[in-house]
Amino acid sequence: MAELSERSGIPVATVKFYLREGLLHPGVRTSQTQSSYDDTHVRRLGMIRALMDVGGLSVSRTSEVIAAMADQDRPLGEVLHAAQLSVSRFAATAGPLDRERALARVDELAARRGWTVHEGNPGRLAAADVLATLDHVGVHSYDVLITACATAAEIVAEADLEEVAATVGGRESVVETVVVGTVLGDVLLMAMRRMVQEHISRKQYPHTP
Amino acid sequence: MAELSERSGIPVATVKFYLREGLLHPGVRTSQTQSSYDDTHVRRLGMIRALMDVGGLSVSRTSEVIAAMADQDRPLGEVLHAAQLSVSRFAATAGPLDRERALARVDELAARRGWTVHEGNPGRLAAADVLATLDHVGVHSYDVLITACATAAEIVAEADLEEVAATVGGRESVVETVVVGTVLGDVLLMAMRRMVQEHISRKQYPHTP
Repeated sequence: MAELSERSGIPVATVKFYLREGLLHPGVRTSQTQSSYDDTHVRRLGMIRALMDVGGLSVSRTSEVIAAMADQDRPLGEVLHAAQLSVSRFAATAGPLDRERALARVDELAARRGWTVHEGNPGRLAAADVLATLDHVGVHSYDVLITACATAAEIVAEADLEEVAATVGGRESVVETVVVGTVLGDVLLMAMRRMVQEHISRKQYPHTP
Repeated sequence: MAELSERSGIPVATVKFYLREGLLHPGVRTSQTQSSYDDTHVRRLGMIRALMDVGGLSVSRTSEVIAAMADQDRPLGEVLHAAQLSVSRFAATAGPLDRERALARVDELAARRGWTVHEGNPGRLAAADVLATLDHVGVHSYDVLITACATAAEIVAEADLEEVAATVGGRESVVETVVVGTVLGDVLLMAMRRMVQEHISRKQYPHTP
């Protein structure tokens, strides 16, 4: 355990917490007080920290993702879908009336783009909430931004699937690529957007510190 | 107050809370127990809900954004910068060693793309954390995803600045466009990414429910 903590850079107490929560699989017991851990444990710990610390996922959300990854009996398509759902829980905010109209707008936009998604796609519902909220706030339409987000989403999702296809290793590796790529990719995308925003602002607005 | 609550769809108790926290500017007192509120209050309430409910910002973060918006004395470039900072606080996670190396990678990528940003850009630091974390997790490189995120970020940030340029109204409207566009745009981008992921997965992986 001390060695595992050292190799992963995670304090012993935290490793114990992850074991108790079922996020980390148990080691092989070698004596009354000792267990042996291997590379799969180090790797899993890296994954847990990535999802929780950088991705901002909760313990329970992380635990769902790990469970989906470890499920060997379901078809890969189903497992990927379950993993995607776990990393895509958005807050529901729009009222039923607003949402109805906003969903119609999202479906129309998806149809124009040629996207086929099922009714319960978490992104579909979240996108509708955003559109309903944008309608409420001020008088500005944000149409240019909405179109840009759609184009950007296509570019990133294409890359997501390319990353999956290029993943070497078993299904656990594939699910890992989906989960890590989605959660950390979200943060990277937001981060880079801030960089380019500053770059362009500097040219257009003097006094940017 | 009852009328304001009705027009905005926000409970009286919540409106009072926003007044107490300074998120909402006070109305004009018309008697010992009554104040009058106008369209600026309805609009501000919409903005508060957008940032907190859909954007997931905390009360204190929202309050910073509102303060930046209301500041009439600073040059617009500075105000936009302050607003951008408030909606761009990412968790710092990488250790100093990892971060040093990852920052060099981010700066190199920015130079290649022609992005000029100052050292403290919140996106620069967050991007470095993501790269450091991706390095730690598994063996997969995610280079394709990183490049796609950069391209997508350029497309969205261009649209961000176009929206700003197209905003009608005073500086409060301009800051509103930046803040709402950035916070809700982040969510929209993630949401649409999930839609396109599903669309492409369906074709490539059977058994996607």
